[in-house]
Amino acid sequence: MPKLYLFKIGGKVIDKAEARTRFLKGFAAIQGPKILVHGGGIIAEQLALRLNIPTEMHEGRRITSKDMRDLVTMVYGGGINKSLVAELQSYGCDALGLSGADARIIQSERRAPDPIDFGYVGDVRTIRSELLEAFLKLGLTPVLAPLSYDKEILNTNADGIASAVASALSEFYEVHMMYAFEAPGVMLDLKDPGSLIAELDHAGYEALLSRKVFTEGMLPKLQECFKAMKRGVTDIVLADAENCLLAALGESYRGTRLTL
Amino acid sequence: MPKLYLFKIGGKVIDKAEARTRFLKGFAAIQGPKILVHGGGIIAEQLALRLNIPTEMHEGRRITSKDMRDLVTMVYGGGINKSLVAELQSYGCDALGLSGADARIIQSERRAPDPIDFGYVGDVRTIRSELLEAFLKLGLTPVLAPLSYDKEILNTNADGIASAVASALSEFYEVHMMYAFEAPGVMLDLKDPGSLIAELDHAGYEALLSRKVFTEGMLPKLQECFKAMKRGVTDIVLADAENCLLAALGESYRGTRLTL
Repeated sequence: MPKLYLFKIGGKVIDKAEARTRFLKGFAAIQGPKILVHGGGIIAEQLALRLNIPTEMHEGRRITSKDMRDLVTMVYGGGINKSLVAELQSYGCDALGLSGADARIIQSERRAPDPIDFGYVGDVRTIRSELLEAFLKLGLTPVLAPLSYDKEILNTNADGIASAVASALSEFYEVHMMYAFEAPGVMLDLKDPGSLIAELDHAGYEALLSRKVFTEGMLPKLQECFKAMKRGVTDIVLADAENCLLAALGESYRGTRLTL
Repeated sequence: MPKLYLFKIGGKVIDKAEARTRFLKGFAAIQGPKILVHGGGIIAEQLALRLNIPTEMHEGRRITSKDMRDLVTMVYGGGINKSLVAELQSYGCDALGLSGADARIIQSERRAPDPIDFGYVGDVRTIRSELLEAFLKLGLTPVLAPLSYDKEILNTNADGIASAVASALSEFYEVHMMYAFEAPGVMLDLKDPGSLIAELDHAGYEALLSRKVFTEGMLPKLQECFKAMKRGVTDIVLADAENCLLAALGESYRGTRLTL
């Protein structure tokens, strides 16, 4: 099967013009079929503040009101997605920006209002992988915004989209997922750079799980990753954006490689 | 050659929820290959006001500043485009939203700064019609935002996009362009509904041109339309959105049909 590189980037790469340009140039230079999944960044929050759209919270977790959904549709689906696409195009990468509603590429289910109503939030259910494959075969590079579709547009976690897309495309490709991270990788102790784990398999993950070494932010990401690998993804690298690029190029990198 | 219907809608349809839903349901029901090109609507202006982005004008014509370009990228490419796509999907139309930067579908040239610098505005040069054709063959319905690409995203007139896309696709299709209008069609006297011209060919257009009966807003639209027909578009109907739908269904309608 041909190789496919799927990159997931978050706010750290999106929000800083210099880091972003460096990453996009590197990503554009990767040969062969590839996909970019991006998160939200702080632009939506800044704009919500300026427009007096309140950030609703429930027990520390964010609620997506209708106004906020309309705002992230603009910011994620338009502002961020289209500016990433245009910049990639300027580096010679034939990027195609998509929200989950476009061709219903990312179909989700609106999260049940019980026990907490998170509002206009969707959990990914089905990826139209045959269409993504058709776009890739046309030589295009899909750039996916963190928005899914369940009769309407829903705010959706980019990690969940990345892992669902990577799994779905394992039918057609040997999928390598490059997960650009705030931290340098999976660490036993976030304060100790020497505690970075270079390679982690599922048995090792379960052993560490029982020792409760993973932070609250890291745990759902690792769960998503191992779920994706059980569904056919070949391997996953968790590292900062630049080391993800090095890993995709087959060069030595600093980060964590997950295997089954 | 198979038939293709290309609809162009503007603010009148986009801004009013009821008119918009009625139009989108009708559009979704049209069988066979079709394309929707949409304009901007007043949402961008309202948002610019709320964000204190000044509307720059020169001799009555609007200038697109960098801030305004970033705003219309969000509003046209995200807010309007994705909500049209999601609503069409909910009516069973497999819509695919695109800005001109996506797959460089609409390539333009930034307007020269002399004699007036209009800022981030592009005039359409090249349509990647082979890709639009590939999307149509996949059963998708392209929904095009009024944004083009010339090394970056540029604000672009939707009429120009519609006529360029219609012309370019004449290579593959018998293209019928449905131009949803503020007025009921081409009229000799805007105040006299009885003066609506049901059919206008190029000779008739030139005769009326010398009599200076067309308003300033109508003239560039008619020029674009006849240019498109000279490049292969079969015919063009100018009417309100509902009569455009009737015309596409082959039913009797009230509006102006342009022929060569």
